[in-house]
Amino acid sequence: MITESVFSLADVPEPKEEDLKDGEVLVELEAMSVDPYMRGRMTSRKSYIPAFEVGGPIAGYVAGKVLKSKADLKEGAHVSGMLPFRKRQIVKAASVFPVTPSEKCPITQFIGCLGMPGLTAYLSLKHIADPKEGQYAFVSGGAGAVGSTVIQLLKSKGVKVIASAGTDEKVALCKELGADAAFNYKTVGEGPELEKTLAEFAKDGLNLYYDNVGGRTLEAALNSMAQQGVIVSCGAISQYNHSAPSEAFGIKNLFMITVKSLKMQGFIVTNWLSEFPAATMELAKLFIAGKLVGKQTVLEGFDKMPKAMMGLFTGDNIGKMIVKC
Amino acid sequence: MITESVFSLADVPEPKEEDLKDGEVLVELEAMSVDPYMRGRMTSRKSYIPAFEVGGPIAGYVAGKVLKSKADLKEGAHVSGMLPFRKRQIVKAASVFPVTPSEKCPITQFIGCLGMPGLTAYLSLKHIADPKEGQYAFVSGGAGAVGSTVIQLLKSKGVKVIASAGTDEKVALCKELGADAAFNYKTVGEGPELEKTLAEFAKDGLNLYYDNVGGRTLEAALNSMAQQGVIVSCGAISQYNHSAPSEAFGIKNLFMITVKSLKMQGFIVTNWLSEFPAATMELAKLFIAGKLVGKQTVLEGFDKMPKAMMGLFTGDNIGKMIVKC
Repeated sequence: MITESVFSLADVPEPKEEDLKDGEVLVELEAMSVDPYMRGRMTSRKSYIPAFEVGGPIAGYVAGKVLKSKADLKEGAHVSGMLPFRKRQIVKAASVFPVTPSEKCPITQFIGCLGMPGLTAYLSLKHIADPKEGQYAFVSGGAGAVGSTVIQLLKSKGVKVIASAGTDEKVALCKELGADAAFNYKTVGEGPELEKTLAEFAKDGLNLYYDNVGGRTLEAALNSMAQQGVIVSCGAISQYNHSAPSEAFGIKNLFMITVKSLKMQGFIVTNWLSEFPAATMELAKLFIAGKLVGKQTVLEGFDKMPKAMMGLFTGDNIGKMIVKC
Repeated sequence: MITESVFSLADVPEPKEEDLKDGEVLVELEAMSVDPYMRGRMTSRKSYIPAFEVGGPIAGYVAGKVLKSKADLKEGAHVSGMLPFRKRQIVKAASVFPVTPSEKCPITQFIGCLGMPGLTAYLSLKHIADPKEGQYAFVSGGAGAVGSTVIQLLKSKGVKVIASAGTDEKVALCKELGADAAFNYKTVGEGPELEKTLAEFAKDGLNLYYDNVGGRTLEAALNSMAQQGVIVSCGAISQYNHSAPSEAFGIKNLFMITVKSLKMQGFIVTNWLSEFPAATMELAKLFIAGKLVGKQTVLEGFDKMPKAMMGLFTGDNIGKMIVKC
């Protein structure tokens, strides 16, 4: 478990306008996205995503405003992208893309359901799952930033959805977002009881399991899949804080993948950067049409980032955890 | 572990020519395929492929000869398909398809590297893996019926291949079939030592793991995959004879699927029956061109089927286990 002591706020020199080169913009951050995957970069263990440099800035998905520009982006334009968590900075214009906040669609949404978690939900369903009307899906972590968008995107395609969450309040949110059924995994359990719950919902098995939690829930889901089902491996939050790999939960029924001809595929949204602008537009259309709701937990103040990060692992957030600068 | 006592040979009435209806053929079996997946049908536990009926005939992939025909198939034609293991029987012509054995390509090959294991190798690589020249692949069970065909098909595409097997003789066979490297998993080990062996072979990780064994080997392979790698889940012979699911090996590093954006997909060849005739032709072309060698262990006599089946689990076979009727 990470603690406040691993973070520190640094005073660094302000970027100077005269340092701006051709193709660059001076950006001021407006909001920062705090996400579970970032835990994987805070490690001294062998890591499969680049670890943050100790003493260097944390980086992540942000929304900001162009203060000065020597590129195609206009001054005053709003942009999104993966940037260091630094209040004001000079960046290459190509490392961000323009977004269009409005009264109906505030800037924080562009790092919420129109930001990295929304893009994760949208692009993973598009490239891995291709869900069809009438299918049955289980979404774990249904009240989380990704899960809540997945529920809504699946419902917009006519998929029957059951979702899990860790508090009754979050369960209620899953239902509010359109889930046909939702349950509290802490009261239902994660073994045979979970399998029973899933079997009652999807009598012929699940066509899709959208996995945000891993571990015992994944094992139960494997037993609950229909032939030719698809598992999107988006996250495994139940397994992130182990001090050693040997402490992880051991999954004993992977042979289900063979006997049911399942496809289980991992998804890392940063492998699809070139699709971000178009996908953001698609999500914004759904948002403005009222077909996508973005629940957010917003902490005010640049310095609230550590609190936001720790809150992810204690379940403090409902929907997307956002820090407004 | 299955024993001889679970099998019995039954005398049943001969099919009569006058019972032949339009669209049917009277077939005499020439050879029968005995495969590990059949173990899954010999169970009283919940099974994901239909269990054999107790007292009924075992069924599987066969080659035979048409003795009488009231269909498009000519008398004397050779055919393949999934049929009960019964010496002579009347079947619908549509349940088999014609094959063309020759001096260069004997009938037993049509249930070997041109039969179910060959079709499994060919169709799973085609539909799941799509291997590319210069990639690195690991094939477990490399001397088995499927594995040995996979090695050769991968080599024909310019893929670098490392294979595992359980005896030094089988390791030698893997190399003879073209594997760039091969090892005896009983001497190398299946944990960190295996990972070291794989890392020495594929410095940037494996692009493909063709899994015939499951368990600890699969866990080591997951740790050894490159980004965007593909795992074909064809079998898990190390896990078939457990008396209860709880005895299976627990895989603790499935999160590799997410962090490396892996695709892991199961393959059951009988879901692709409609592609059998064309795929058999493709494999026969490779065989006649000398690009595909089909090692076989042939037991002579219809009644040798139980011995052949048990031999699969004690490693008696090199290459495809076949019973010649």
